[in-house]
Amino acid sequence: MTAATSVQTSLDRVLAEVDAGLEQSLERLYTLLRIKSISTDPAYAAECQRAADWIAAELNGLGFEAAARPTPGHPVVVAHGPKQDGTHVLFYAHYDVQPVDPLNLWHTDPFEPVLKTDANGRQVIVARGASDDKGQMMTFIEACRAWKKATGSLPVQISLMLEGEEESGGKNLPPFMEANRAELGAADIALVCDTDMWDRQTPSITTMLRGLVAEEIEISCASLDLHSGMFGNAARNPNQLLAEIISSLRNPDGSVAIEGFYDDVAEISPELKAQWQGLGFDQAGFLGDVGLSVPAGEQGRSVLETIWARPTCEINGMSGGYTGDGFKTVIPAKASAKISFRLVSGMQPEKIRAAFRKHVQDRLPADCTVSFSNHGGSPAITVPDDGIYLRQALDGLSGEWDKKAVITGSGGSIPVVGEFKNILGLDSLLIGFAHVDDAIHSPNEKYDLESYHRGIRAWVRVLAAFAS
Amino acid sequence: MTAATSVQTSLDRVLAEVDAGLEQSLERLYTLLRIKSISTDPAYAAECQRAADWIAAELNGLGFEAAARPTPGHPVVVAHGPKQDGTHVLFYAHYDVQPVDPLNLWHTDPFEPVLKTDANGRQVIVARGASDDKGQMMTFIEACRAWKKATGSLPVQISLMLEGEEESGGKNLPPFMEANRAELGAADIALVCDTDMWDRQTPSITTMLRGLVAEEIEISCASLDLHSGMFGNAARNPNQLLAEIISSLRNPDGSVAIEGFYDDVAEISPELKAQWQGLGFDQAGFLGDVGLSVPAGEQGRSVLETIWARPTCEINGMSGGYTGDGFKTVIPAKASAKISFRLVSGMQPEKIRAAFRKHVQDRLPADCTVSFSNHGGSPAITVPDDGIYLRQALDGLSGEWDKKAVITGSGGSIPVVGEFKNILGLDSLLIGFAHVDDAIHSPNEKYDLESYHRGIRAWVRVLAAFAS
Repeated sequence: MTAATSVQTSLDRVLAEVDAGLEQSLERLYTLLRIKSISTDPAYAAECQRAADWIAAELNGLGFEAAARPTPGHPVVVAHGPKQDGTHVLFYAHYDVQPVDPLNLWHTDPFEPVLKTDANGRQVIVARGASDDKGQMMTFIEACRAWKKATGSLPVQISLMLEGEEESGGKNLPPFMEANRAELGAADIALVCDTDMWDRQTPSITTMLRGLVAEEIEISCASLDLHSGMFGNAARNPNQLLAEIISSLRNPDGSVAIEGFYDDVAEISPELKAQWQGLGFDQAGFLGDVGLSVPAGEQGRSVLETIWARPTCEINGMSGGYTGDGFKTVIPAKASAKISFRLVSGMQPEKIRAAFRKHVQDRLPADCTVSFSNHGGSPAITVPDDGIYLRQALDGLSGEWDKKAVITGSGGSIPVVGEFKNILGLDSLLIGFAHVDDAIHSPNEKYDLESYHRGIRAWVRVLAAFAS
Repeated sequence: MTAATSVQTSLDRVLAEVDAGLEQSLERLYTLLRIKSISTDPAYAAECQRAADWIAAELNGLGFEAAARPTPGHPVVVAHGPKQDGTHVLFYAHYDVQPVDPLNLWHTDPFEPVLKTDANGRQVIVARGASDDKGQMMTFIEACRAWKKATGSLPVQISLMLEGEEESGGKNLPPFMEANRAELGAADIALVCDTDMWDRQTPSITTMLRGLVAEEIEISCASLDLHSGMFGNAARNPNQLLAEIISSLRNPDGSVAIEGFYDDVAEISPELKAQWQGLGFDQAGFLGDVGLSVPAGEQGRSVLETIWARPTCEINGMSGGYTGDGFKTVIPAKASAKISFRLVSGMQPEKIRAAFRKHVQDRLPADCTVSFSNHGGSPAITVPDDGIYLRQALDGLSGEWDKKAVITGSGGSIPVVGEFKNILGLDSLLIGFAHVDDAIHSPNEKYDLESYHRGIRAWVRVLAAFAS
């Protein structure tokens, strides 16, 4: 019996181990979800450290050599399994989570995970990070645990790199990868677990990801807050000015109005367009699930095209003046906004940032000023879709669900995929089990119990496929 | 010697009493300023009650029959001096103050008053409410105290009505005035102390006040917060939509773009225009003092006209999405704004409110909704400028300063002036000693020591003029 045959015959035992251990797997996930690892808020730095330490301890318990390694920000957990011949994979996920505000919209404590039955009768794990990305991360770790427990070893050589600053545009990971290039770049392929399934029946691997440019602007007009009775009409109101600038970012047809914004944007190929049409994307359902019916992007293009293959400009936050209870007739001195751009293949983040800043500067009256803060940027990514690892992974995934795994795009941005390529020379396979209704970044974030359970089983299969 | 002659000969003694007692007058003002009577925030209700009780006790100590009388909101202090023949005045001011945010921009504790020397070498009292309106209120009470101390009595019959909800659009005062119409309406003229001097050398009485309509809107798009990577382009962003709606409220020429907004707005008379030109208003200085140089209102009109005689639309607050530290790539479910309109003579608040709401409704995509909150409204006021009380008050004021008192307009709104007329049948004289740089409603609010000192002396003189 060859090693590959041995792996295949072990598969049923490992899958049975996953099923038998599900309850304990869940308890371990809950322990991690209780740690408030909000990376963007310095008040939670100790919680981020605690999450990293907990994960490293778990991995050491599974026979990895694991440590929470320091950076100028939050730690990176790096772990290496026993050396062996054949494929060597580097698994990536992130243990940090988004802030929880507005807290009053959560039905339960965001850091006290609960298993609920949702309106569709599905069991779901509710907590911040349940889906993005602690739940997804744990599917892989628990798959390793099942292999170890059922067979005493892992089917391929496995390393992990688990980040703590994915939600805070953290700039510490690329230098960390540079500094550990030889160690981390020894793998053959990166596995990134931070994406959705195509639908509840269809697993998928994402090969196109939008890039990101994140900017914060603060508009200053008067040198102090003014009374709107005394100064209304005379003094420039920065709320009004900011609204006019934001309004000017989009054309009435939904396209972005910044000069040169589309210069480097190519139309997708007719082949890809046809393939995407074959996916049978339910545009009305996609919007309807979140209470909408009118697509907001460029007219004349499908919703799928506008989120996978067209850039966007989104106002993620906006504030100025008095926003508390009651009313205050103030003309504030300042108003500010957090604005991000999603980029597609070909667009250069710093060129877009510069064009945006010029657009804003050009619209300021002579007595007003603006300050810009750079919250990071990354180009879009296209993963080659003809490699052996992709084929093996598609095979592994297809075994777990009723439908064959498909290749998709994604509107989101996962900068690390670019860094794997640029710094470590590794292609990435983006495999995840989340769903579009998981409310990631929102109150009452959840992860389907089925995502967790089948996610673990799917990784068991994908690892077997790599060993075959 | 007639009573009038007797009053005139007492004047010097009373003024000397003001000067000798200034330090103690200041201590009493400080005591009141330390009370955190923020009326808009329910957390400070007990502080509002405490301020009312303190003022009532002070007035009782001066021989008034005074009490803090309950309303469904904060109390109204009503006080009556001894009955006597001749003019009977009803003095109005408010003891509540604006919120103090942003607190980090205050150089000292807003509720621990300090006497400072400002950049111009002037002594100023710094505290929330120092100018608006506790300092102004105390100028009158301290004038009464000086009359009582120097002569044993008050020169005319005096009642006071001191409100605690002026800064929170409180709707409890009009019913209170209705319920006590006979008692309060027995006066001959109302004196309202909540306005500015024309300039540091020129006292003034305001005869035109803008009205107010205050609205809050909340735009709802998706049923939950969304990830801008997953939904960016596809989902309507309420921040963007709100910005577009706000932007649509003003035309490029600075005029308000709501349909019918100017229908009931009359041009001011050539006489008034000429009189205002004679005031020598320093438009560049007015804007320059607050760091501005480009007037924001209707082009082709003077700044003075745009703030005294033209309506405005101001965005007093605006918020949506993530506004904390760091960055969050969210498309929020909702965004909101606090928007107020200043009205001029002839405009009907409810007609403007309805036109505004239609303007917003007309701009909503089919899958978005808006909710409106009414934060109050009042029409503009024009006080007749040919009465005997106005002439007497101008005479009294002119005695205290180098320049003769002038008649002015004001961009602000003082709803109680309309209520004095409509409910009690009383005209009002708007007399105040504040300055445009007092930073009312802003961090580091101040009141010039000279405003306080000469304000007390001016009221001593005005009361004498009413008795002559």
